[in-house]
Amino acid sequence: MKKSNAAMVCFSGGQDSTTCLFWAKKHFSRVEAVCFTYGQKHSKEVEVARQIAGDADVPFQLLDVSLISQLDQNCSLVNPQLAMDEEKPADSYPNTFVPGRNMVFLTFAAILARSKGIFDLVTGVSEADFSGYPDCRDTFIRSLNVTLNLAMDEQFVIHTPLMNRDKSEVWELSDQLGVFDLVRTRTLTCYNGIIADGCGHCPACKLRKHGLEEYLKRRGLKDNR
Amino acid sequence: MKKSNAAMVCFSGGQDSTTCLFWAKKHFSRVEAVCFTYGQKHSKEVEVARQIAGDADVPFQLLDVSLISQLDQNCSLVNPQLAMDEEKPADSYPNTFVPGRNMVFLTFAAILARSKGIFDLVTGVSEADFSGYPDCRDTFIRSLNVTLNLAMDEQFVIHTPLMNRDKSEVWELSDQLGVFDLVRTRTLTCYNGIIADGCGHCPACKLRKHGLEEYLKRRGLKDNR
Repeated sequence: MKKSNAAMVCFSGGQDSTTCLFWAKKHFSRVEAVCFTYGQKHSKEVEVARQIAGDADVPFQLLDVSLISQLDQNCSLVNPQLAMDEEKPADSYPNTFVPGRNMVFLTFAAILARSKGIFDLVTGVSEADFSGYPDCRDTFIRSLNVTLNLAMDEQFVIHTPLMNRDKSEVWELSDQLGVFDLVRTRTLTCYNGIIADGCGHCPACKLRKHGLEEYLKRRGLKDNR
Repeated sequence: MKKSNAAMVCFSGGQDSTTCLFWAKKHFSRVEAVCFTYGQKHSKEVEVARQIAGDADVPFQLLDVSLISQLDQNCSLVNPQLAMDEEKPADSYPNTFVPGRNMVFLTFAAILARSKGIFDLVTGVSEADFSGYPDCRDTFIRSLNVTLNLAMDEQFVIHTPLMNRDKSEVWELSDQLGVFDLVRTRTLTCYNGIIADGCGHCPACKLRKHGLEEYLKRRGLKDNR
């Protein structure tokens, strides 16, 4: 991919979007970050994101889309009355699913990007993610890309560098990008709002830890070869 | 179409969406209305919408998506610094175009509808509209429908009863639905915030008036036959 043009990264300060931020810095000459608040229990997320973007010299913009959580209170991430599903229910999505979330994020990201003359969007969604949220699937992203182009009569391109990577491969990518330690020590993925290794028992921590162990094992084998 | 189920109507209190509201009341056993504020110059629009919905016995919900106008200040409808284009520029859209507006509206309408068990959405967009806004085209709506279904793993259906009707045919439909006088005297279409016949010189008023005259002429010819 030629290094040119500008990209807008959907950025939350977690492992995935931080890896995407540095992926974008490698592939685009100008990078901006957009972060969304939507009534998350842990607004610490936003401060973590702002600091990482600042240190990476990436302009950071915060958009309040809390309307999305007022519309549907069935999600544990935004409703303090609900305990979080720690396992995926057999017949549905875990209650950490905020319906339409990525669609709202990417739509606003596109409108913002367009106003700045940016038409490349980067998001850290992955099909390899544990829960199978429908709005993380490649098919959805491709359909959304077409819809955005038709809505605004523009040529957006949505980049999903993590789409087919499991968590160990996301760790690997951050290592290739030279930000393995930064991602490991400074990002916030934990649903309970604890930075770096997190609480250790929420679904996000388990997934992150499992991927890290797998990657370190693979790297160790390679180093010792 | 069988009268069953429930529909959510995107409703602004203008000629088009009011016609759609009554179209929905004819075709669905339960109808709700959702209205969007987005920093319009004329918030009177909202009060007009609320009253029409109330009199029609339709639950009315107002959603604030003013974020959309904070993202792009190049539109005259939301930026008081800009004079409104009264004619369409030859090489672009008139500055009454709010980029992504219908995509944001319909996405939030879908999330809200889903939380109420409603999967039929109704919008008054029309390809016959004068300006050729990209987000009023049938292709966009069909693409959005697919994207919404993929985003939430649901089966939404977006209904566009006005898609291929010009303004005279929208008047005709309101007459068929028995609400011609209501639409004529109580709706607000005018960009300058004047109810019914409006200011008479903004693009919306000209379009409405031209359609009305055309329809009345056609109806007169028919009545006298």
